[in-house]
Amino acid sequence: MKKLITALSLSITGIALPVSAQTDFQTDSVFIRKIYDTALAEGKAYEWLRHLTQQVGPRLSGSEGAAKAVVYTKSAMEGAHFDNVFLQNVLVPHWVRGAKEKAQLINGKQKTEVPIAALGGSVATPKGGVKGKIIEVRSFQQLRDLGSDKVKGKIVFFNRPMDPTKINTFEAYAGAVEQRAAGASEAAKLGAIGSITRSMTTRLDDFPHTGSMRYASGAPMIPAAAISTNGAELLSKTIKENPDTEFYFEQYCETLPDAASHNVIGELKGQTNADKFIAVGGHLDSWDFAQGAHDDGSGCVQSIEAVRILKTLSYQPNNTLRAVMFMNEENGMRGGVTYADSAKSKRETHIAAIESDHGGFSPRGFGIVGTPAQKAKIQLWTRLFAAYGIHELGPGGGGADIGPLAQQGTVLLGLMPDTQRYFDYHHAANDKFETVSKRELELGAAAMASMLYLIDKYGL
Amino acid sequence: MKKLITALSLSITGIALPVSAQTDFQTDSVFIRKIYDTALAEGKAYEWLRHLTQQVGPRLSGSEGAAKAVVYTKSAMEGAHFDNVFLQNVLVPHWVRGAKEKAQLINGKQKTEVPIAALGGSVATPKGGVKGKIIEVRSFQQLRDLGSDKVKGKIVFFNRPMDPTKINTFEAYAGAVEQRAAGASEAAKLGAIGSITRSMTTRLDDFPHTGSMRYASGAPMIPAAAISTNGAELLSKTIKENPDTEFYFEQYCETLPDAASHNVIGELKGQTNADKFIAVGGHLDSWDFAQGAHDDGSGCVQSIEAVRILKTLSYQPNNTLRAVMFMNEENGMRGGVTYADSAKSKRETHIAAIESDHGGFSPRGFGIVGTPAQKAKIQLWTRLFAAYGIHELGPGGGGADIGPLAQQGTVLLGLMPDTQRYFDYHHAANDKFETVSKRELELGAAAMASMLYLIDKYGL
Repeated sequence: MKKLITALSLSITGIALPVSAQTDFQTDSVFIRKIYDTALAEGKAYEWLRHLTQQVGPRLSGSEGAAKAVVYTKSAMEGAHFDNVFLQNVLVPHWVRGAKEKAQLINGKQKTEVPIAALGGSVATPKGGVKGKIIEVRSFQQLRDLGSDKVKGKIVFFNRPMDPTKINTFEAYAGAVEQRAAGASEAAKLGAIGSITRSMTTRLDDFPHTGSMRYASGAPMIPAAAISTNGAELLSKTIKENPDTEFYFEQYCETLPDAASHNVIGELKGQTNADKFIAVGGHLDSWDFAQGAHDDGSGCVQSIEAVRILKTLSYQPNNTLRAVMFMNEENGMRGGVTYADSAKSKRETHIAAIESDHGGFSPRGFGIVGTPAQKAKIQLWTRLFAAYGIHELGPGGGGADIGPLAQQGTVLLGLMPDTQRYFDYHHAANDKFETVSKRELELGAAAMASMLYLIDKYGL
Repeated sequence: MKKLITALSLSITGIALPVSAQTDFQTDSVFIRKIYDTALAEGKAYEWLRHLTQQVGPRLSGSEGAAKAVVYTKSAMEGAHFDNVFLQNVLVPHWVRGAKEKAQLINGKQKTEVPIAALGGSVATPKGGVKGKIIEVRSFQQLRDLGSDKVKGKIVFFNRPMDPTKINTFEAYAGAVEQRAAGASEAAKLGAIGSITRSMTTRLDDFPHTGSMRYASGAPMIPAAAISTNGAELLSKTIKENPDTEFYFEQYCETLPDAASHNVIGELKGQTNADKFIAVGGHLDSWDFAQGAHDDGSGCVQSIEAVRILKTLSYQPNNTLRAVMFMNEENGMRGGVTYADSAKSKRETHIAAIESDHGGFSPRGFGIVGTPAQKAKIQLWTRLFAAYGIHELGPGGGGADIGPLAQQGTVLLGLMPDTQRYFDYHHAANDKFETVSKRELELGAAAMASMLYLIDKYGL
């Protein structure tokens, strides 16, 4: 450990490294430069993403789109001449939205349509919809303080915005998302008849942002939807002016029986340790009304591209490298769990897993989940990444899909792109191909390929 | 010097700083946090930019839009209660495009319209346009090697793309832009009758990207235009298939007599050294068919915002802080020259000048032009900025408008945002308000305010 930390300080301050390390630095920096050249001058990720988002389109677990995405990414990996491409069976939840939702805020005789979207996992409203007085709260504590007397028979409106002052928008999301995930049950416990949550974005616009919710056991299952931020602002203003404001909404979603689906896995066989693995992945499913360009089409095509680039450069990996398209991150995480279970039962030791699920934006670092020694080893590569604007090796986690591998001692890494625009598009209909910058996407793929290469070469 | 460099190394490696420095670090980090909170939660820059781009619109030097932009930004600074807001007279070149250009590539009997835009400063074509065989070159050397025999009477097509493998896109721009700036005269020296340059962007699309060009003295003044990258690809392909391909274009631009215009300057008076200045600025002019959202509406509103934030936080500056809206960066640089000349003649010592003219993208660093000791002093603040994702203090220049101040010993700083998307929009009709992220714009303003604060507090 001590040795590692000394070397780390040296590399950061730019003081000369020992000769042996310098040689590696030189070799590695030349190879990483080739990785970036390949990604930026002959990249495939952008055209794969165009197809996945515009031709395949939305791909919620269990949908036809998800099945097409499995076929498409399998063929992309085969087309890139991976050594081995196969499907892994995953049984997934199958929630469907049905017809488009309706919602109105009713201020006396005035009715105003507002954009909402049922939350994933929610029940439908009864036929004819739900209508009632609506009360606004900013926290579960405030809701509980109101008590069942004031909540019973009403619709609860959760309107705590994401904190705009957080520099990392994922922190702002973490501080607000309980309203979407658990708000309905919190409200139902006090007798509410419906739940409306402000969309999880710092931007003011007309897109409702969906996302998963769960019912607490024992609480009545009331319908839950997200309202656009402009809708939330209007609703809040109207309630302030008229506390008797009512809300009406109708939604048609339902949960069907679990469906058969797949993870898609492509490999480059390890030359030395074919039974040891380094995985790089994203999730193939998206929400049902979104192209899922940033979430997480980008992570999928970047993962395939990272492995393809190494193959294109004739890199002979020591360990088996895998690109993994995880199914069902959005509403069940079944793909990630299945993958880890399979690895365990087949004794496929995973040295590391790298996930990209923070959007196809300009990369700025990698989150690392591992021991201090493992983190320090990765941080030895700081100077190699700095040339590409990647300065943050450490802060942040790995990713939801690779999370279950942690129990097996796998080091988890999450590509951390710039987070400022992610929630402009997250789980909304505007998460489209056009919002992804080709260069930013490619830089992320190159960063992932570089990390794959270094971990494969040096171990962890 | 030695002391500074030791402290720098310490701050980067995260080892404890001396107690006195720690105290300052604590104070400064609290104040900078307030700057960011103000920018992100109560920012004004985005709405100012909306007005400047959508209500004022294009604002090429000498145009009605430029005059409106002067009035608008003056009123914005007055509305923000700056101590003193005034105009500085600047005589600017007055080039006008006239009617929209026409262009066709002619392959035998087939005529295909392609999008072009006259380059700023170009002459018009003769009435009825210019038509002739077109030859493609990738470099001035290749052009000279062809010689006047092969060039005379033809249109020269400069088609060297920006190098996509450059990580900093401004380096790729620097490697290609001579074709736009000087191509016409290089071609004219060999008898060419027109010059068509591939647009300066790595993206393939249908927007011609204009920009300034200059005629070399002695060379005939032939008309020069930019063609969209898709147009350039088509043209190149067609020429390969048929070397007798012809090109026709017609443009109506002209250079009118110089026009009266202004820099706009707003101040917060220094409490200790009112006669010493720190300026922060962007350029108010844009190309004539662009809203100039990134180039450089963003830099303008960020500069006003940086000063406004310090005022809002009741910061009492030691030195006089100035927001400067420079006029005529795009095609003459008269505003920057006038500002520096005035500072010299009035003995207004400028400690530092900070420019934002690389787009309203997520900030990643500051370029610094100064002595090694001055750079080292600024780099002592690395740890303060790192919390906000700003890791690159040093590489890169200051900026075109503040450049003339260098002769007076002023330290120049350029805000360096992420460069990946800049040339998608640069000098093109898609440089629109909608392409600017509110948060990214605000983070840039906060970074500039933080740098202003630190320089004002510690000097350079």
